[in-house]
Amino acid sequence: MQPLERGEALRLLGSVSLGRLVFTQQALPAIRPVNHVLDGEDIIIRLSDGAALASLTRPAGGPKAVVAYEADVIDPDRHLGWSVVATGYAQFVDDPADVERYEHLLRPWVARSMTAALRIRPELVTGFRLTDGPTDVPSVASPE
Amino acid sequence: MQPLERGEALRLLGSVSLGRLVFTQQALPAIRPVNHVLDGEDIIIRLSDGAALASLTRPAGGPKAVVAYEADVIDPDRHLGWSVVATGYAQFVDDPADVERYEHLLRPWVARSMTAALRIRPELVTGFRLTDGPTDVPSVASPE
Repeated sequence: MQPLERGEALRLLGSVSLGRLVFTQQALPAIRPVNHVLDGEDIIIRLSDGAALASLTRPAGGPKAVVAYEADVIDPDRHLGWSVVATGYAQFVDDPADVERYEHLLRPWVARSMTAALRIRPELVTGFRLTDGPTDVPSVASPE
Repeated sequence: MQPLERGEALRLLGSVSLGRLVFTQQALPAIRPVNHVLDGEDIIIRLSDGAALASLTRPAGGPKAVVAYEADVIDPDRHLGWSVVATGYAQFVDDPADVERYEHLLRPWVARSMTAALRIRPELVTGFRLTDGPTDVPSVASPE
């Protein structure tokens, strides 16, 4: 398990379109799979879940919500792949030109217009790459 | 986007071996990709990250940590797949027989012995299945 540097971690994150937004919802840990694109180092996601959005809304001038964003490509059988976690403040994208641009870049999973775009500015980026299969693995397969 | 019932959601979760543990670490949202097996409805994971484990440790008799556990199989190009999120209390597995059994069932990604096994008892299980491509994306293949 080899740690990744920030640049390489962000490059890998930008190479996929699916990730997971991790946040706090009613004092509980919450997670949603979403699409993303990178804009520079910023992670841009679309979110159409009203309850999740409400959890990320803060009163104007109040503290911004800290979220984590994770993406991975892992082959559990061959023990190869990588995982990246970026942690930072989430902000709503409110510039109309940005909203329109991101709406074209972020492909929706369901047929509805994008409710909100969020920008995550990564303060902390960590990740690892699995480079080698373990030697102590018994031949037991996972169920099904 | 079709919601999943608890039974079907847990069945799908048990059909894969990779998921993501979501928890709170130093008051920040945190996430780790891990392997899992299901034991009845309980989700059993192995965790060898000392800092993460410390965040899940509670003083004896104190409140247990609430975590979320997510797994998904999503094809971002074809907009097909599913995601399941289970939320519940995490407990360390301390019965020696259980620890040994899970150590054989849970395949490590890196060559080291399992530091700890955690049992998540799902209180809340939610999930969705993507059954249909959106109509506003031209190049999406038709659903199976």
